[in-house]
Amino acid sequence: MSVEKKRMAVAELAVLVGGRVVCGDGEVLIERVASLESAGVGACSFVEDAKFLEVAKESRASCLLVPEGMSEGAVGEFAATLVEVARPKLAFALVAEVLHARVKRGGGIHPTAIVAESARIAEDVFIGAGVCVGERAEIGRGTQILAGAVLEDDVAVGDDCVIHPKVVLYAGVKIGSRVVLHAGVVVGADGFGYVRDAGGYHKFPQVGGVVIEDDVEIGANSCVDRGALGLTRIGRGTKLDNLVQVAHNVQIGERVVIAAQTGVSGSTVIESDAVIGGQVGMGDHARVRAGAIVGSKAGILPGKVVRAGAVVWGIPVRPLDEYKRLNAHFGRLPQMRAEIDELKRQVRELSARLAETPDAGDAETSDAETRN
Amino acid sequence: MSVEKKRMAVAELAVLVGGRVVCGDGEVLIERVASLESAGVGACSFVEDAKFLEVAKESRASCLLVPEGMSEGAVGEFAATLVEVARPKLAFALVAEVLHARVKRGGGIHPTAIVAESARIAEDVFIGAGVCVGERAEIGRGTQILAGAVLEDDVAVGDDCVIHPKVVLYAGVKIGSRVVLHAGVVVGADGFGYVRDAGGYHKFPQVGGVVIEDDVEIGANSCVDRGALGLTRIGRGTKLDNLVQVAHNVQIGERVVIAAQTGVSGSTVIESDAVIGGQVGMGDHARVRAGAIVGSKAGILPGKVVRAGAVVWGIPVRPLDEYKRLNAHFGRLPQMRAEIDELKRQVRELSARLAETPDAGDAETSDAETRN
Amino acid sequence: MSVEKKRMAVAELAVLVGGRVVCGDGEVLIERVASLESAGVGACSFVEDAKFLEVAKESRASCLLVPEGMSEGAVGEFAATLVEVARPKLAFALVAEVLHARVKRGGGIHPTAIVAESARIAEDVFIGAGVCVGERAEIGRGTQILAGAVLEDDVAVGDDCVIHPKVVLYAGVKIGSRVVLHAGVVVGADGFGYVRDAGGYHKFPQVGGVVIEDDVEIGANSCVDRGALGLTRIGRGTKLDNLVQVAHNVQIGERVVIAAQTGVSGSTVIESDAVIGGQVGMGDHARVRAGAIVGSKAGILPGKVVRAGAVVWGIPVRPLDEYKRLNAHFGRLPQMRAEIDELKRQVRELSARLAETPDAGDAETSDAETRN
Repeated sequence: MSVEKKRMAVAELAVLVGGRVVCGDGEVLIERVASLESAGVGACSFVEDAKFLEVAKESRASCLLVPEGMSEGAVGEFAATLVEVARPKLAFALVAEVLHARVKRGGGIHPTAIVAESARIAEDVFIGAGVCVGERAEIGRGTQILAGAVLEDDVAVGDDCVIHPKVVLYAGVKIGSRVVLHAGVVVGADGFGYVRDAGGYHKFPQVGGVVIEDDVEIGANSCVDRGALGLTRIGRGTKLDNLVQVAHNVQIGERVVIAAQTGVSGSTVIESDAVIGGQVGMGDHARVRAGAIVGSKAGILPGKVVRAGAVVWGIPVRPLDEYKRLNAHFGRLPQMRAEIDELKRQVRELSARLAETPDAGDAETSDAETRN
Repeated sequence: MSVEKKRMAVAELAVLVGGRVVCGDGEVLIERVASLESAGVGACSFVEDAKFLEVAKESRASCLLVPEGMSEGAVGEFAATLVEVARPKLAFALVAEVLHARVKRGGGIHPTAIVAESARIAEDVFIGAGVCVGERAEIGRGTQILAGAVLEDDVAVGDDCVIHPKVVLYAGVKIGSRVVLHAGVVVGADGFGYVRDAGGYHKFPQVGGVVIEDDVEIGANSCVDRGALGLTRIGRGTKLDNLVQVAHNVQIGERVVIAAQTGVSGSTVIESDAVIGGQVGMGDHARVRAGAIVGSKAGILPGKVVRAGAVVWGIPVRPLDEYKRLNAHFGRLPQMRAEIDELKRQVRELSARLAETPDAGDAETSDAETRN
Repeated sequence: MSVEKKRMAVAELAVLVGGRVVCGDGEVLIERVASLESAGVGACSFVEDAKFLEVAKESRASCLLVPEGMSEGAVGEFAATLVEVARPKLAFALVAEVLHARVKRGGGIHPTAIVAESARIAEDVFIGAGVCVGERAEIGRGTQILAGAVLEDDVAVGDDCVIHPKVVLYAGVKIGSRVVLHAGVVVGADGFGYVRDAGGYHKFPQVGGVVIEDDVEIGANSCVDRGALGLTRIGRGTKLDNLVQVAHNVQIGERVVIAAQTGVSGSTVIESDAVIGGQVGMGDHARVRAGAIVGSKAGILPGKVVRAGAVVWGIPVRPLDEYKRLNAHFGRLPQMRAEIDELKRQVRELSARLAETPDAGDAETSDAETRN
């Protein structure tokens, strides 16, 4: 990632994140973020929790973002200038957004890029070496299309996007603004749908489109298929990790997070603010309602509905507490087996004793039946 | 996907799919397929099942493919021209194949493509921008190699294939006719085999080849490794979804379907007409016999044989009915636990009562043993 | 894979692998390796185990590498020249390394490659068509960068590497010597880390680096993300299969093997000599200690530590023997269910009989409670 070096006084930075300088020199210049351990002069780091107090005192960072109240009674003990703020990790992310803002390459089209005459390229667009842009494609202001990406005919990309090397956008795909697509992402390939006849498979038409809304980020080598007849859609602010598979006609809401190697089958809906772990598999026509959390490696059956806000786990998914309880029982199966065997022994013994008891000897319990 | 607009009268279309016009105007022109809800003038849609009768009556499609007998007694109630046909969804796919046939770009080699002099390029081949074609490669008539694809030395591709952008075919890979490889597919990379000695790993030779037969389609970013010493083979008419992994020496039969993110380990055999779900993992040297169905997320142990026509599920796989039964028992483990505890209580009680019974007091059941 | 044909006398080859010619003509020339079944004149094959003795006698290979002592009493019965050696499969790999050594293309930069003026390219480097090499990049002696690969600014690649087509190395990535990156590999994309605020997600800074040490091989379309603040590291001699995901700040030791489609979450550590199966998922901040073996499809919870040398399996992982035992119990749940039902019946019966016994009739066991 090419980054440009900026500098900011701690006092400015405090304003940016809504915090306040509680000790040290507010004029110290900060030019990068770093971890607590590796930070040095010019670096800003953060402390999420008061339990890191001692480590924080040792840090050689020029600025530390710390939780409110943490410095109380210990102001003199820090080498760094301290900024207290409600959510230090969030503040740290905001500082990094400024200090490590992606270098905006100057606009320009590399001489080796192939751009169709009918394409409409806005101002300040950077188009790298070997990029192909098809007929009637539209690229918005400030967007950067890096080396070797392919945008087929009728693709539209909004403003201030970063399309990394080797991304392929099939014909007609629509991308919003401030979208980041990492290297190797493929958007708009045919969905996986066939109809069988005697001789083999015929492709069910895969002639729909894909819409990726603003502020989406998609990780390296992930795939988002085009709709069969309608659209595949990824909502605003949603983030996908690497090697994720999104099938035809899937609808993903806003601010959804999906970790690596998860696969979402055709026509499944993931509502806004859901959080999906890695290597999850979702069958087709399932629905994950708003704000639900799906644990890593979970399996969601076709047509299954996960309730809003639910936390589910397992294959197939169950509520997390049930999943944990069942797993605990599973781990104690050998003990359960032993207890049953002991019960059988006791019942045999009781039965035998009862047979010896006067007036009860005529009704012997059969043991053989339990031996299968 | 670049598509070309064709037009066809409903009457022609009925002949194409082996159906018959049962009401409406057979001369109406159709130029695209669409879903029942979105279809308008010029569109053909389909109804798979009579339960959609009412929706179908409302459709603004110009033509509807419907099951035989569905229009009976309701002929006057449809806006669309109706074509009755044995399998409407299949008919719909066939119509789409004609109306949405991929635009055959005119033959030609883009000036930025690098094609070895010793390569043999047939007529009507399209080679896009930045494509590389190695020494002695052969490309059959009508095949389209899209932007940025790389065909190394000695690759052979048959007729009428579509090799999407960024596909990489390693040296010597053989591809049949009418094969579609989506963007980012890699065929012929080294298989994953090493031999360990004291210092680390030596590569087991990966010098075999890959054969992909006619009418195969492979989804975006999927990988098919070359054989170690022999061949990796994918049979005619087989369809692979995105992000599928096919290891060295795997043999896949004809008309096999494999959903996304499934991985097949070395030397495993999948016989013809098998259907494999998504995120399935198969160990090496396993065999899935003809027509078997393997559920999503299933795990097949190395060397395992799945019987012909079997439906299997789970990790490791079991017959589906057994899998369902076991899962039901699993979900009731807490109840089973409670029942065992109650049995223990009852047995203790019986034992205690029996101890109080005259002539039986000498044989007390030990309860302590069951308490581990 | 472009390979160059070399030739070697069996006697030389025996010296190379530390074996000895026990029968046949040591002057026979060998030019390739092959499987026992397909080998012919000029080919070397191997026999791992004496149980293949009869097959070996039939082989038409010119040379067979066999276990020590295997030829005893049967020397005259082989068509091939026999070389006895301690580890025939390892010897076979060593022979293949020589006979099938990758063709070293002559150094040279293809005229369509885009190489920054500030890049430092050593001698004998091959840079293929359409390759992009960024500012200040360094490429070591003998390295081959194949068609369409992209090396961004400040990337360093050591000596004698093979960077296959379409590989993308993000800015600042450091690659050792003799590293092989297969087609479509992406190294250095942003890690997947965000901080949520009211409006959505802010990226946690992903400004660290990636170090890939000597002799690493990474399979097609795999992804290795850059560190958030620190480094992601893959140790010397480690081998990754296709479609593997390595998240930010992961530390992988030396001589680790990871099979296809496995995913390793952020900051997890895999120590040296571990062996990881396919489709494994590891949560973040987990640790797999040296030499541990993790079975395919296993799931490792965040923070979990797998002991050195342990063999673990399942979701979540357990020691293999425990996993097997539990799975066996799982498979017999229906029987356990039946046994509990039978016990309940017997206890009811005992209880009833006891009620009929003089002096014990006043203490009836409640059966209703067990009926939930």
